[in-house]
Amino acid sequence: MSRFQGKRLARLVPYTPGEQPKDMKYVKLNTNESPFAPSEKARKKAIEAAALLQLYPDPDCTALCEAFAKSVGVSPKNVIPGNGSDEILNFAFQAFCDEDLPANFPDISYGFYPVFAQLNGIPYREIHLREDFSIALEDYKTAVGMIVIANPNAPTGLTLSRAEVEELLKAHPNSVVLIDEAYVDFGAETCIPLIEQYENLLVVQTFSKSRSMAGARLGFGIGSESLIADLNTIRYSTNPYNINRMTMAAGLGVLADEAYTRENLKTVMKNREETVNELKALGFTLTDSKADFIFAKHPDLSGEALYQGLKSRGVLVRHFKKPRISDYVRITVGSKAEMTALLTQIRAILEELK
Amino acid sequence: MSRFQGKRLARLVPYTPGEQPKDMKYVKLNTNESPFAPSEKARKKAIEAAALLQLYPDPDCTALCEAFAKSVGVSPKNVIPGNGSDEILNFAFQAFCDEDLPANFPDISYGFYPVFAQLNGIPYREIHLREDFSIALEDYKTAVGMIVIANPNAPTGLTLSRAEVEELLKAHPNSVVLIDEAYVDFGAETCIPLIEQYENLLVVQTFSKSRSMAGARLGFGIGSESLIADLNTIRYSTNPYNINRMTMAAGLGVLADEAYTRENLKTVMKNREETVNELKALGFTLTDSKADFIFAKHPDLSGEALYQGLKSRGVLVRHFKKPRISDYVRITVGSKAEMTALLTQIRAILEELK
Repeated sequence: MSRFQGKRLARLVPYTPGEQPKDMKYVKLNTNESPFAPSEKARKKAIEAAALLQLYPDPDCTALCEAFAKSVGVSPKNVIPGNGSDEILNFAFQAFCDEDLPANFPDISYGFYPVFAQLNGIPYREIHLREDFSIALEDYKTAVGMIVIANPNAPTGLTLSRAEVEELLKAHPNSVVLIDEAYVDFGAETCIPLIEQYENLLVVQTFSKSRSMAGARLGFGIGSESLIADLNTIRYSTNPYNINRMTMAAGLGVLADEAYTRENLKTVMKNREETVNELKALGFTLTDSKADFIFAKHPDLSGEALYQGLKSRGVLVRHFKKPRISDYVRITVGSKAEMTALLTQIRAILEELK
Repeated sequence: MSRFQGKRLARLVPYTPGEQPKDMKYVKLNTNESPFAPSEKARKKAIEAAALLQLYPDPDCTALCEAFAKSVGVSPKNVIPGNGSDEILNFAFQAFCDEDLPANFPDISYGFYPVFAQLNGIPYREIHLREDFSIALEDYKTAVGMIVIANPNAPTGLTLSRAEVEELLKAHPNSVVLIDEAYVDFGAETCIPLIEQYENLLVVQTFSKSRSMAGARLGFGIGSESLIADLNTIRYSTNPYNINRMTMAAGLGVLADEAYTRENLKTVMKNREETVNELKALGFTLTDSKADFIFAKHPDLSGEALYQGLKSRGVLVRHFKKPRISDYVRITVGSKAEMTALLTQIRAILEELK
C-alpha cells in the first residue's frame, strides 16, 4: 500500500479468484471451467487472427456482435461485448448506479458484486436468501436502484423461471434488473426473449463456461437499445479496444459451431446428474443445481475438511468461508474421468472417517 | 440514452478512437499502428495458447511479468499487466486520484486523459503547452494531485529528457507522476531507471506500437512495489483475468525476439527522418517528433483540407479539431511504400493548389 492512495482504495477488498496452484497437477474442479477443448473452428479463427496483430481490432466489434445477436435472436444494437462478462458487470454498476442509486443482490451469490459496488463507490444491500437458498422475490419489493441476480445463482446453482423474472421486471419498471446468465446454458431459462418488452432488463452472458473459452475472455450484455448505448458510453470511455483480435475471431468461430457446444452441454448435464446421484448415495445433501457445478455438504465432514482432504489427494474444489455456506463445497462438473477421480477420493475420505 | 442513467454518465464524453472505415481500402496512417507483422515468435506462441482456451489464464500473469520485468531491468513486483496500456491509465486514475486529488496534464496530449478523469469523477487541470508545444515544467509547480505526461507527447512527438522528468519527480515528492511512454521506443529516453529512487514515479508502456501488437491488447505499468500493489488492488477488483491466454503467450514470444523489434524500430525511425525531410522540402512545418508519427502543417492548406484531400485519395491521417492544433495533421510513420504513397498524394494535392 502506497502513501499516494486516493479514497477509493481505502474501501476496497479485491475479489479472490479461485486458486491456481502451481505446486502440482490437480484435478481442477474449482473454477467452473469447461472440461472440453475449444471448438476447432474457434481455434482456427484465432490462429488466422494472430497473423494481423499489428492492427487494432475493430472497436465496434461489428462482425462478432452481429453473429452473437443472430445466435440469440436479437439485433446487434441490443448487444455489447466485454473482456469477459465481469467487464460488462462493472460497466453496468458504473452506468446504472451511483451514491443515490444503490445495487441490490442476494447475500449468497457471485462474490464480485459487492466488489464492483465498493470499487465504484456505490451503496449496496445484500438481500437474504431463504433457508433453502432460494430467492424470495417478495424480498425485493422495496429495492431502490439496480437489482442483480445470477440465474442460475452461484454457488448454489438454483434458478428462477423466466416467468418469475418477468414478475420482478414488472414490479420494478424504474430499476435496471440485471440477470447474470453466466451458467444459463446448463439448464436454466434465458431471459433474453424478454428484452424486447422490458427496457429495464439487462442480461449478461459469458463464453467462459458453456463455450470453453475462459482463457479467451469474452462476455456479452444483452438489453434494450438505450441500455446498451449507455453501456457503450462507459466502454468507449474505458477501453474502446477491449476485445482483442484473436478473441474476436475465436468468438466468431465458436458461434459457427453450435453443434459442438450443444454436445458438450449434454455431456456436462449428464455427468452432473450422475455425480449428484452418486453423492446422494454417499450421504451428501445437494442443491438442485442447473449450472456446471454442484453444491454439496456431508453430515460427517465440514466443508473445510472436505476441501482440504480433496486437495491433499489432488482434487481441487472451492470452499467459501462464509456464514450459511461454510458446510458446503462447490464442485465443477468436469469430464467423466474427472468425476470418477472425484468420487474415488471422496469415498476414500469417507472410508477414513469410519 | 436510457432513463436509468446514474450520475456518472451525465458528465461523460467518451473517447473517439481513430476512424476504421470499411468503405474502401486505405493507406492507414491514422492510428499509429506498426507497419510490420507481429514477431513470428509471438504468432507461434499465440497459436499454441489457442489450444487451451477452456482454462482461465493465470491471473497473476507470472511468466509474462517476469519476462517483461527482466527485459526492462526491474523486479516482477515492479510491473502490472493491462489489457492495453489504456487499462493501466484508468487504474492509475482510480488508485491515485479522487474528488480532492485532481489530475494534471497538458492541454494538448492524449485525448483519453480527460475522459478517464470524467469517468472516475476526478477534477482535472489542463496545463498549457508553450507556443511551440513544448512542456514548461515550471507550470507544474503548483500542481496538486497526480501529474500525467506522455513522453514523447502525442500528437506532437516532443520529448522530455530523463533529467527533466527527474527534476519534476523531485519537485513533487508527494504526487504520483505518471509518464506515459507509449511511444518511447522510437527515440525518447525511458524513465524506468528512475523507479528505484522515486516511489512516486509510474511509467506506462504498451506493446501496441513498437512491438506490432495493437491487435493483441497488452500494456504494462512499471513503478515502485507499493504503487504496483495499489494498482493490483484495482485490477483484482475490476478484472483479475484481464489478460487472455493468447495475448499473454504472444507477449512472451515478442519478448524473446528483441532483434526483430529493434530492426523494425530502426526502419520506422529511418522512414520518419526521410519523410520529415521530404515534407520540409514541400514547405511543411513539423515538430521534432521522436514517435512513430509526425505532426505537420502546410502554410497553404488547413489541417482539415489536408486530411480530407488525403482521405479522398485513399490515405487516412488523423486531424484533431482542437484549438492550437487544427492546422496540423498527425501522420503515422509506416513502411517505405506507405510513405511513398503519402508523399505522392501530398504532392498531387499541392499541385492542384497552384
